Amino acid sequence: MTYQELYKQIIAKQSYLCVGLDTDIRKIPAHLLDSEDPIFEFNKQIIDATQQFCVSYKPNLAFYEQHGEKGLASFVKTVKYIKAKYPEQLIIADAKRGDIGNTSAMYRDAFFQTMPTDAVTLAPYMGRDSIEPFLQIEGKWAVILALTSNPSAEDFELQELKSGERLFEKVLKTTKEWGSHENTMYVVGATKAKWLEDIRKIVPEHFLLVPGVGAQGGSLEEVAKYGMNSHCGLLVNSSRGIIYASNGVDFAEKAHDEARKLQLQMAATL
Amino acid sequence: MTYQELYKQIIAKQSYLCVGLDTDIRKIPAHLLDSEDPIFEFNKQIIDATQQFCVSYKPNLAFYEQHGEKGLASFVKTVKYIKAKYPEQLIIADAKRGDIGNTSAMYRDAFFQTMPTDAVTLAPYMGRDSIEPFLQIEGKWAVILALTSNPSAEDFELQELKSGERLFEKVLKTTKEWGSHENTMYVVGATKAKWLEDIRKIVPEHFLLVPGVGAQGGSLEEVAKYGMNSHCGLLVNSSRGIIYASNGVDFAEKAHDEARKLQLQMAATL
Repeated sequence: MTYQELYKQIIAKQSYLCVGLDTDIRKIPAHLLDSEDPIFEFNKQIIDATQQFCVSYKPNLAFYEQHGEKGLASFVKTVKYIKAKYPEQLIIADAKRGDIGNTSAMYRDAFFQTMPTDAVTLAPYMGRDSIEPFLQIEGKWAVILALTSNPSAEDFELQELKSGERLFEKVLKTTKEWGSHENTMYVVGATKAKWLEDIRKIVPEHFLLVPGVGAQGGSLEEVAKYGMNSHCGLLVNSSRGIIYASNGVDFAEKAHDEARKLQLQMAATL
Repeated sequence: MTYQELYKQIIAKQSYLCVGLDTDIRKIPAHLLDSEDPIFEFNKQIIDATQQFCVSYKPNLAFYEQHGEKGLASFVKTVKYIKAKYPEQLIIADAKRGDIGNTSAMYRDAFFQTMPTDAVTLAPYMGRDSIEPFLQIEGKWAVILALTSNPSAEDFELQELKSGERLFEKVLKTTKEWGSHENTMYVVGATKAKWLEDIRKIVPEHFLLVPGVGAQGGSLEEVAKYGMNSHCGLLVNSSRGIIYASNGVDFAEKAHDEARKLQLQMAATL
């Protein structure tokens, strides 16, 4: 999916919502546990119930790998279901991968071919050759960790370099030269909304993937105020607030309601 | 596996060799391609042929995920084969994971329970809560990226902080406080052997996992000279040099020979 296509979707749906499919078998409704693949069944119903209000889905690989190859099969089924039924959705594999060049190229093939997603989150620690393979395929995206929403972001991401920049700023300035706003996005935690203004000075055109609205405590208004650009430039993720809005038989209906609430709030900011 | 158990293995085998199971379907011998699971069949024969000369196996997840759930099944079969037949081997999942705390705990369960390895490589970018879940289980290991062997390590790992330390030194100093040498190891590229002396000043007791000997160009003598401590403190990895020593029917035999060569070189340094 290209930058323009994503922007078109956002305008058409009046939403920049990304629904995080962090599907935890311990949290899904009891009545689904008898189905052949409870995780996929849960995802399918969540997707059908929320797709009209969002432009992106972001399954986090940890939740699937926890169940070994069976979990990865649920992930692949989920991705293929979205691709077949809702091809206008941007699928982000929240995998936070990163390895030396020839190995990163294999992760790229894993997530852009075998398990056909559109974007992968990447840790920048190992530098250019760990990111570059993901920038080589038209319409696919590298989503690079910049400033994350967890408290321990301060351990390294916020360290000040000799040059006066913080590490995450160095990451933004360095990595933006490797690709463009048409194949690179950045993860920026919503709990750090005040940083968004500074980040926009470095990457004015790029999309920012903002987790941490809702359960992790960020404010949508602040994110929109400081983070939005002329092409929206935001994907705001919500996981638990939507997918676990209810753990009864009405879980999909409640997810629908929560996604709509966020979509309405987003429409007001666009 | 504990620190002392690992050291005992090293002394008994006179080896600190880790064999990297970076198994690429495009490089394995043609006669294996007809078997039900060529990747597992290849690994099994490599393991049987090399186990007497090494103390550890390190499958890299990218090579398995490239094939989706089928590839992950080959990974799990490989890990379980080693655990059942050679329980004295330390199995390192070379996965380079790292996420916020509750998600990292799922990766921990994935690799320490579902797919029972002993250690996981981790990217430190997100800080403490991304590492800590891996330090909570007796006998299991976090293997943290410090200074990697790829050229673009200089993009971020070698950046100098305001404090005068380089980023990888900050990572060592900070992360060593979260656990101990009994549950934390560090990845240090052999192409940076001259750095090992400095690294040993920061982490004198920890094991260092050193990739990049062989195909990536490091020297075993230099690594041993600058990196060894009173408990050896080294695991030196070789992948391609061993597992692709031949791509004919004699591949396991040749792998055996290459592993023995390295073991003999290692014995001379112990």
